[in-house]
Amino acid sequence: MEMDSVIDGFLKFDSEYTEITYNNPYGPNPADYLSNVSHFQVIESTLREGEQFANAFFSTDTKIAIAKALDDFGVDYIELTSPVASEQSRRDCEAICKLGLKAKILTHIRCHMDDARVAVETGVDGVDVVIGTSQFLREYSHGKDMTHITQSALEVIEYVKSHGIEIRFSSEDSFRSELTDLLSIYRAVDKVGVNRVGIADTVGCANPRQVYELVRTLKGVVSCDIECHFHNDTGCAIANAYTALEGGAKLIDVSVLGIGERNGITPLGGLMARMIAADRDYVLSKYKLHKLRDIETLVAESVRVNIPFNNPVTGFCAFTHKAGVHAKSILAPPSEYEILSPSDFGLTRYIHFANRLTGWNAIKSRVDQLNLDLSDEQCQEVTMKIKKLGDVRPLNIDDVDSIIKDFHANVTTPVVRPVGINSDTAPRVPHNLERLDGNGVVARKLLGRRR
Amino acid sequence: MEMDSVIDGFLKFDSEYTEITYNNPYGPNPADYLSNVSHFQVIESTLREGEQFANAFFSTDTKIAIAKALDDFGVDYIELTSPVASEQSRRDCEAICKLGLKAKILTHIRCHMDDARVAVETGVDGVDVVIGTSQFLREYSHGKDMTHITQSALEVIEYVKSHGIEIRFSSEDSFRSELTDLLSIYRAVDKVGVNRVGIADTVGCANPRQVYELVRTLKGVVSCDIECHFHNDTGCAIANAYTALEGGAKLIDVSVLGIGERNGITPLGGLMARMIAADRDYVLSKYKLHKLRDIETLVAESVRVNIPFNNPVTGFCAFTHKAGVHAKSILAPPSEYEILSPSDFGLTRYIHFANRLTGWNAIKSRVDQLNLDLSDEQCQEVTMKIKKLGDVRPLNIDDVDSIIKDFHANVTTPVVRPVGINSDTAPRVPHNLERLDGNGVVARKLLGRRR
Repeated sequence: MEMDSVIDGFLKFDSEYTEITYNNPYGPNPADYLSNVSHFQVIESTLREGEQFANAFFSTDTKIAIAKALDDFGVDYIELTSPVASEQSRRDCEAICKLGLKAKILTHIRCHMDDARVAVETGVDGVDVVIGTSQFLREYSHGKDMTHITQSALEVIEYVKSHGIEIRFSSEDSFRSELTDLLSIYRAVDKVGVNRVGIADTVGCANPRQVYELVRTLKGVVSCDIECHFHNDTGCAIANAYTALEGGAKLIDVSVLGIGERNGITPLGGLMARMIAADRDYVLSKYKLHKLRDIETLVAESVRVNIPFNNPVTGFCAFTHKAGVHAKSILAPPSEYEILSPSDFGLTRYIHFANRLTGWNAIKSRVDQLNLDLSDEQCQEVTMKIKKLGDVRPLNIDDVDSIIKDFHANVTTPVVRPVGINSDTAPRVPHNLERLDGNGVVARKLLGRRR
Repeated sequence: MEMDSVIDGFLKFDSEYTEITYNNPYGPNPADYLSNVSHFQVIESTLREGEQFANAFFSTDTKIAIAKALDDFGVDYIELTSPVASEQSRRDCEAICKLGLKAKILTHIRCHMDDARVAVETGVDGVDVVIGTSQFLREYSHGKDMTHITQSALEVIEYVKSHGIEIRFSSEDSFRSELTDLLSIYRAVDKVGVNRVGIADTVGCANPRQVYELVRTLKGVVSCDIECHFHNDTGCAIANAYTALEGGAKLIDVSVLGIGERNGITPLGGLMARMIAADRDYVLSKYKLHKLRDIETLVAESVRVNIPFNNPVTGFCAFTHKAGVHAKSILAPPSEYEILSPSDFGLTRYIHFANRLTGWNAIKSRVDQLNLDLSDEQCQEVTMKIKKLGDVRPLNIDDVDSIIKDFHANVTTPVVRPVGINSDTAPRVPHNLERLDGNGVVARKLLGRRR
């Protein structure tokens, strides 16, 4: 059995299907007959979970820009902060509902009728209801108030359904909840017709096989879809999402760069990397992967962080090969050391550039990676600036990026021409330099950016 | 069976062990009887895999500083670049062997006698031999040169063993190699007495259950230890390490911040986060976790990258809580939303309350910090005022404090005492305020915290 599933990737399924050769050793395991690896959906929560990230403050305009970008990317759902969190949160929720996006709009509320009443008035396509850990653990998991909790959940569910919109019921901290109680309430809400039930690893400590087993168990109890939400405190949020899909979950909560409480949840980009390795055709048929970098840039700038150097797909070294043997192979058939194809994401393989020996082709490649538009001559010019600083001291990526961004700002800014001042001597203010803090974090506005 | 392993975390093992209650739902799964989750070892490869990171150039001094720091941290093995890579690599290898570290020193070579002869002369405690993918796939996996490859491996193994040092034999790209051929050669090298065999996910696309199954299968074929090496292209390197240990692997290759080819391998810090969630006592007994941040800083500076904002444990937001409901629970028993204890890593917890998602419990805590006296109802009222301003713009700590103080001044009877300041109205300095930054983040001291 174990042998089978390991070698399945190299075998034809059976003699009746001689023409179907299953060539991807990283593809869905045929033994997982409930698997949704090739049918998963994404609930994008940058505007809910992501708003709980330490640095996040999204203006209405930013929220709308992010929602539109995510919709264009192809996410299935966009989840918004509860309309009862604040008055502006409620207004923003209404505004996004009115955009007419293809993605379904959800909002995330506590399991209270007060919240439910406000939520259904916003115009959302669905409501995600959650029962908080403390309440759950104290009142429910010890069995004391099971009837009360269940009744409360059913009341909210019936109310939301009566308004013709979707409803998800989720527990919080599912992996520390009593299994039998958990299954009982999931079964109860499934019977009254919730669209989805949710499992949440709120503390970010679940492991992949544990996730698989809980999802498989739950799958035997409910007939509705299963949604999963994984925090990343122990670095397993992508892997847990994958095993959840293998076990029969259908929907995964993600956010751009994984931003959220603490170090966040399953990242959109990382999940795309994981899933394209498993089922490239499905992923490419649904999601515009070449838009990923733009979306990550938009969100990173909004919350004033840099994209981590080791970020899946878009990190500066994600497609960089250095060791001789690796580089050599990449020059011939890239797949030998590289399952992910950078071109699927609109990216190219990457060249080491942050040193005085760098060349303008390497810098041009970095300019492209930063999504900036410079001519060959301009790349040569900025390369000379980089080499000059590299002669003085060791360079880091941020040094090079700062020089490039500064250069780009200067060459793309319309010259300010106060009356009587010659355009050549007029000060040029980098219009897209919004803020620079002590950590060298630059927040830049996205104005007329191509692609 | 599935039910059992899910709920094991909440059950006593059986009636004979009534005093042993198994309270950690994230602990090792008792059904994994070959598990090494509580007996794992670390092969630290910053000075081998990490040297293949795009930005890495380690001077001899830096290598020695990193090796000493890793040794002090408590890693079991330190792996170095092959001494045949360059003359300086060979000298550095010798220099590190002479440091007299507690950790065993390994070097990583191709499966050639030429390499083996140089390696054993450096003074290393062990040699890691690898057969490259192309060679393996072309000559071996098609069965054409199996005899030749096996003989070559056996010659190297016998030679290294004759010098009284450890030897590991690893395949490369193990998950795309033919299973039966793979197992045959592993069995052959096991029979002649290698200390370890290695599985490598060279392209970073294996998934956790696939890893578990291959390790379990291999565990049934060899009697030696199993070492695993996971690249992180699809974000599963930590999770794959964990399931490998569950399946019976004993040693995990890591590097500081995961640096290596492309976006790297299993990171030391991330693995520590994963493992401490599973077996805190074992991890704390072996590794000096409070040194982690220093080591990461050392390596990050050496390779000129920033520590990612979302890095496990040491990322700036790893222990920051923001949403009202989270902050509320953290203020009571932190474990409710936080399995990892920042104090285990010599770090501090942050609660972010200066934002519109804040809850009144967080504000009440701030009111207490300010040494003001407000009722719960009054805290709820002032919280609404703070949320209102938070809707308009990002808040900093002074904004919140001003609103609270203003509110407090209004609700308490103002007693004007221009002459002779009474001690009751003298300004009080928040005694438990350890650190305060411009973004309204408060660091709370961890004193007498349980666990």
